[in-house]
Amino acid sequence: MMSDKIRLLIWNENEDEKRFPDTLKIYPGGIHGVLESFLKDDFAVKVATWDQDDTHGLSDEVLDHTDVLIWYSHLRNEIPKATLEKLVTRVFDGMGVIFLHSGALLSFANILLGPSSRRGAYREQGELERLWVINRAHPITDGVPDHFEVQQSEMYPEPRDIPTPDDLIFISWFEGGEVLRSGYTYIRGAGKVFCFLPGHSTFPVYYQPEIQTVIKNGVRWCAPLKKPPIQSRSGEVDFDYRTIAHNI
Amino acid sequence: MMSDKIRLLIWNENEDEKRFPDTLKIYPGGIHGVLESFLKDDFAVKVATWDQDDTHGLSDEVLDHTDVLIWYSHLRNEIPKATLEKLVTRVFDGMGVIFLHSGALLSFANILLGPSSRRGAYREQGELERLWVINRAHPITDGVPDHFEVQQSEMYPEPRDIPTPDDLIFISWFEGGEVLRSGYTYIRGAGKVFCFLPGHSTFPVYYQPEIQTVIKNGVRWCAPLKKPPIQSRSGEVDFDYRTIAHNI
Amino acid sequence: MMSDKIRLLIWNENEDEKRFPDTLKIYPGGIHGVLESFLKDDFAVKVATWDQDDTHGLSDEVLDHTDVLIWYSHLRNEIPKATLEKLVTRVFDGMGVIFLHSGALLSFANILLGPSSRRGAYREQGELERLWVINRAHPITDGVPDHFEVQQSEMYPEPRDIPTPDDLIFISWFEGGEVLRSGYTYIRGAGKVFCFLPGHSTFPVYYQPEIQTVIKNGVRWCAPLKKPPIQSRSGEVDFDYRTIAHNI
Amino acid sequence: MMSDKIRLLIWNENEDEKRFPDTLKIYPGGIHGVLESFLKDDFAVKVATWDQDDTHGLSDEVLDHTDVLIWYSHLRNEIPKATLEKLVTRVFDGMGVIFLHSGALLSFANILLGPSSRRGAYREQGELERLWVINRAHPITDGVPDHFEVQQSEMYPEPRDIPTPDDLIFISWFEGGEVLRSGYTYIRGAGKVFCFLPGHSTFPVYYQPEIQTVIKNGVRWCAPLKKPPIQSRSGEVDFDYRTIAHNI
Repeated sequence: MMSDKIRLLIWNENEDEKRFPDTLKIYPGGIHGVLESFLKDDFAVKVATWDQDDTHGLSDEVLDHTDVLIWYSHLRNEIPKATLEKLVTRVFDGMGVIFLHSGALLSFANILLGPSSRRGAYREQGELERLWVINRAHPITDGVPDHFEVQQSEMYPEPRDIPTPDDLIFISWFEGGEVLRSGYTYIRGAGKVFCFLPGHSTFPVYYQPEIQTVIKNGVRWCAPLKKPPIQSRSGEVDFDYRTIAHNI
Repeated sequence: MMSDKIRLLIWNENEDEKRFPDTLKIYPGGIHGVLESFLKDDFAVKVATWDQDDTHGLSDEVLDHTDVLIWYSHLRNEIPKATLEKLVTRVFDGMGVIFLHSGALLSFANILLGPSSRRGAYREQGELERLWVINRAHPITDGVPDHFEVQQSEMYPEPRDIPTPDDLIFISWFEGGEVLRSGYTYIRGAGKVFCFLPGHSTFPVYYQPEIQTVIKNGVRWCAPLKKPPIQSRSGEVDFDYRTIAHNI
Repeated sequence: MMSDKIRLLIWNENEDEKRFPDTLKIYPGGIHGVLESFLKDDFAVKVATWDQDDTHGLSDEVLDHTDVLIWYSHLRNEIPKATLEKLVTRVFDGMGVIFLHSGALLSFANILLGPSSRRGAYREQGELERLWVINRAHPITDGVPDHFEVQQSEMYPEPRDIPTPDDLIFISWFEGGEVLRSGYTYIRGAGKVFCFLPGHSTFPVYYQPEIQTVIKNGVRWCAPLKKPPIQSRSGEVDFDYRTIAHNI
Repeated sequence: MMSDKIRLLIWNENEDEKRFPDTLKIYPGGIHGVLESFLKDDFAVKVATWDQDDTHGLSDEVLDHTDVLIWYSHLRNEIPKATLEKLVTRVFDGMGVIFLHSGALLSFANILLGPSSRRGAYREQGELERLWVINRAHPITDGVPDHFEVQQSEMYPEPRDIPTPDDLIFISWFEGGEVLRSGYTYIRGAGKVFCFLPGHSTFPVYYQPEIQTVIKNGVRWCAPLKKPPIQSRSGEVDFDYRTIAHNI
């Protein structure tokens, strides 16, 4: 019998784990490991990493069985353009995506959503971040207190020049004096996208219950709908934009 | 004495003019010609085309003197990636852009704003399009009636899967039974973007007073602000995202 | 054993039923009757009408057991202010609301959402309305084709001057030449609101499968979340705005 | 010769001035006085107060000559309903409004925009507020640094449950640990509305150059457009919603 659980693919660049020894001290199984550990009961989870195979864990076979993709990237930006195009098309066809931490500001996110800031400012001092719920009605905040704290976080400051989100859900207050839109969503075609910024590979953010609740809610919110195909009407000519260069 | 007029660069692919003889029957000076004719009194206008030189009319020298760029493209999609990157950065730094007609759904727009539909449906029968003002308070509608007609237009149907606009200004009704979000805006960094869909190179759309008023209003609305530079704060590390591959 | 079904209250003004004999020809059980008939299997449904009792069917007892309220109003606008205030507060505390047809443009909607147009234009000729899905990712469109037709509908034209929706989901094309934002949502506090415009008491709109699917999806989307109460922080003074006149 | 300056009406409740002696120490001419002092060179300014006459300074004669209204209210909420209805209709017809400080969360704002939070939390300790520009392209931020400080401010915390703004412009960081959407806009019909939250009658906020620049930009942004009247189409029936009870 087939499970009717949402099929979740956790993708991790798996590079912080190699370059920064502290990452494996905090997350002995890597960031994909900690994510899998708290998501595997609720969802049908698979894990993929950059270094896994020559598709970087993103073969058609794997993607054909993916409803929602969690994306953690930080340092690597040489993902082949054909792979990114394939992912963008999957999102337009309904696959949900959750961009975690810096993944929300890098290559795949910038190509799918439009680029954000040209300026990559950050501060890495393990300061306090307090997240405030701005949209109390959004399913991603189900069971989440109106504000909660991450004791040690990397700070990304506004103005971040992100494309105006469809839903702004969290705003973060940082100890050092900055604010950040830190949880927000977009639609792209039939696909839903959730960006969730708190984190850092050497801070234990993903062990925190509120963070785990938000990510679980995000997976449920991102799951694809059952949609009949688009019907052409009389006199219409149709072509596939993907046949045109530079069109992702 | 320097003029304080907004410096407008009209960029035309200038390809319909070569492939479709009807284009030059309707617009003997090309699409860039008709645009220049009704914009040159209000703005300090320059014209550029794809075939003009090896920068395609988009040299740094030209862009350094551009406040707002009008972009008409349809068939060519091989604009060099370095040129597109340069344009994206200019927008984030404040340059306004008006995408006319199919230009709003192709390469530069898709890279700046995020991709729109994977499906390029259209109908080219010269049918009636009636534009309805949805946002009566927006400066782009100044002096524009609450609805007006384009007698012959190319039809693009919804669902168009565009990134959710910041401001939805016009919705079009088509004789054949479709609707379209046909005028809408985005911000990208310090830059403002206006997409205005009605048109076709072989229909006399750009001679119409309401269309001309909307485009003039658009240029004024898109003009850059005077902004002090962003100030870094204590402990911040800064880098330039443009140094990273795949980040436009 | 308690059901875990969403508790839905269908409220109907029940006035068209008295003034316009055709209403009962089309809907022998009233508009509340037809709504109940297709919603009662999926949800725990109660029905209330204006003329039911001196609370107009909206006692605290009833509302205490309501997760989502469907609101159909057209002619009556003398709902007591205290009742409207109570409803507004319930929405802010999480109760979902679906405004059907003219209910989206009248008293309760205007007080909850902010007023819409001062101009009440309509055309009642049973013309064709074609609804286009603009947001293919929204749960309210689950299982709904990208466009579908209502054979006979009352026409409300743009510009409608509604408060800019949080999510624009449907745009309607009317045979007579107009367009309308005809399905859209808002949040108000912890409550979600869905406005769905097609309909008229003397046209058989609510028998249509696509319309029924949209309304069922709407009920699920509107259901309240489980939210911890808001926590005050150090030094804060708190008061209840409802103690101030004119503040709904 | 008539001036073509924007005609600005500064309306002040003028009640803090009577109840809290510190107000007149900071602002000897009242809050309307300080606003007038920095706005009178750029705009054609009139001043009105609650206690001025039996129209509370809001006669038809005065409003007939008003393009933009600045509204400062805090304690009084007994403004006659007929006056509020009149103001709402003026906004829909194009009059701009700037709500300052608590005015953005009280009676006129709640009726025009839809209610905000039922919970009136605040902290009045003169703490530091740092405003961050979120929308660098918006004309209201022209000439404004990407962040600036108000040394002593009254704190209003999120979640504030405001209707989702059309444009979110500023987010504030407070010394005590909270954030606030502190500058944002709406459209209502042909009218533009800007809410700007920093302030308190006993802190010298309105002497600050950045605050003055924002308010001046706001007045320019709010000014009405020149719009042809809405044209009815064939078969339409028209009525005036203002004839219906409870419809502001």
